[in-house]
Amino acid sequence: MKGFAALLAILVSLTCQADTSPLPSWQNTASRQAIIAFVERVTSPSSPDHVEPSARIAVFDNDGTLWAEQPLYTQLLFVADRIQAQADDNPTWQTQEPFASVLKGDLAGAFSSSHEAPIQLVRASQTGLDTDTFDQTVRDWMHTARHPTTNKPFTGMVYQPMLELLAYLEENGFKNFIVSGGGIDFMRPWTEAVYGIPPERVVGSRVSKHLEVHDGVVRVMHEGTLEFNDDKEGKPLGISQHIGRRPIAAFGNSDGDLQMLQWTTAGEGPRLGVIIHHTDAEREWAYDRDSAIGTLNEALNQAPQRGWTVVDMKQDWKQVFPD
Amino acid sequence: MKGFAALLAILVSLTCQADTSPLPSWQNTASRQAIIAFVERVTSPSSPDHVEPSARIAVFDNDGTLWAEQPLYTQLLFVADRIQAQADDNPTWQTQEPFASVLKGDLAGAFSSSHEAPIQLVRASQTGLDTDTFDQTVRDWMHTARHPTTNKPFTGMVYQPMLELLAYLEENGFKNFIVSGGGIDFMRPWTEAVYGIPPERVVGSRVSKHLEVHDGVVRVMHEGTLEFNDDKEGKPLGISQHIGRRPIAAFGNSDGDLQMLQWTTAGEGPRLGVIIHHTDAEREWAYDRDSAIGTLNEALNQAPQRGWTVVDMKQDWKQVFPD
Repeated sequence: MKGFAALLAILVSLTCQADTSPLPSWQNTASRQAIIAFVERVTSPSSPDHVEPSARIAVFDNDGTLWAEQPLYTQLLFVADRIQAQADDNPTWQTQEPFASVLKGDLAGAFSSSHEAPIQLVRASQTGLDTDTFDQTVRDWMHTARHPTTNKPFTGMVYQPMLELLAYLEENGFKNFIVSGGGIDFMRPWTEAVYGIPPERVVGSRVSKHLEVHDGVVRVMHEGTLEFNDDKEGKPLGISQHIGRRPIAAFGNSDGDLQMLQWTTAGEGPRLGVIIHHTDAEREWAYDRDSAIGTLNEALNQAPQRGWTVVDMKQDWKQVFPD
Repeated sequence: MKGFAALLAILVSLTCQADTSPLPSWQNTASRQAIIAFVERVTSPSSPDHVEPSARIAVFDNDGTLWAEQPLYTQLLFVADRIQAQADDNPTWQTQEPFASVLKGDLAGAFSSSHEAPIQLVRASQTGLDTDTFDQTVRDWMHTARHPTTNKPFTGMVYQPMLELLAYLEENGFKNFIVSGGGIDFMRPWTEAVYGIPPERVVGSRVSKHLEVHDGVVRVMHEGTLEFNDDKEGKPLGISQHIGRRPIAAFGNSDGDLQMLQWTTAGEGPRLGVIIHHTDAEREWAYDRDSAIGTLNEALNQAPQRGWTVVDMKQDWKQVFPD
């Protein structure tokens, strides 16, 4: 019986170890091992590369890194729905591009009809709304909208392995931030519920705003000018503005994340740069160098020499979306 | 003996209560009571006005609210020292205003010599430095510089009652943010050590920046343009940019905080607006409506009708500075 009890104890111990091992949706390949090795290196009290918790800053791109960005960025689908909802009040849109194409359902055509088209459409979706109203509009849309090819709610299009990664980093004292080219006010209403990332840890592109006072009531109003473009060179600048120090880990999936990866991993001490490579046409989408959305070319070229980990979604992830 | 033990237990209990009661440097006047009543109202699980922790956002002005701002804003003293340090490399400054007045030691004259003088001086103190170098320059200065009238380090010019308030709010699940007209990059290097407020929770005025890449090394460089003025109308806009939701409590001391107080307290549900009124010429400084620094006029007028708590430093604070 004594031997049996000892065996049982070992079995229970092994089972418990399996249950609590980090990143369960990740295959135990080099990608997972590189992430875990980095986290242990900066958190272990005896490590010469120990980093104090307040400096454990990790930054994540959103579209294509935390959730799907195909066949079109989610925010553009939101914007298109806003245009549809306002069409009756704007009869000239029926013949005026890029609105006419949106109203005909040709979103790709609308957004590529001119260089200015995306910001024109974004502007029409939020100019003149106060922050509370726009926030509620986004919340309502996220509750009802469905992905055009999977018919899932968009909160079902987030990546299960990345949710586990966010939780794993937080358990290890990291502060996770989103640094996205997407609109800051489009993300903030739902990132805390979906990713555990509160509004003040979301960095994104911004339209200008002004203060409006009527009968003593103060409101912050959206304007139509793109004040800050949080993409490419903008990402390190956005991090500098909002976070105020250089991250030690950066996660992206496209050339829009190149400068963020460069700046993060060029700092002293241990650094982690990770690229999510979309290689899984069956479970998600496969695209990189030639894709109009999420172009991944220069960052993929630089990954080997800069020591960045390239996650192969098909090989490295057991599961893509949550159950 | 039984009676004695019971008495002892009561005495120990009372002593322990006294030791752990919040805000020990505050007199138990209406100001302290209003703050504690508000915190209990939003944190008590049974309160109809309970606020979830993630929405317990408190914003604090810095100069004159968390530390002294007399006889001159601390950042201007830093800037003056930077001008002195760079004088040999800029011989024309000897005759060129506002630099000439700074080099003669007439700081008040220099900063009021023209509308543009403050930003000209701030620009000279940081343009062309990368973020890491500027950060270190500020840290070094804070270690060695002394207040011109008290000769204390500037970290000794913070208000003990406000340090206790920050800690009390944090213990009650609040997130504290600084929202200051001062330079964001001047505050971030030391706010975590002094106030427990990390860099990403500091909102302030900003100069523009750009990315510089040399031999594959990426740096973020300070430029000389005032990109964002986090004062008056700017404060709600800065909060919207950085925090992304309306605070439930705001603490200020001047008309520069008026719009922040208005916007914060105009929201639905329980709100707290607090003005620190500098009334203590003996232990600190006494100034309000006619002061060039920290003018407090319109906000003081509006306080009664808006239900803001006005803290009388002389009456409400047992102690002003830390021991």
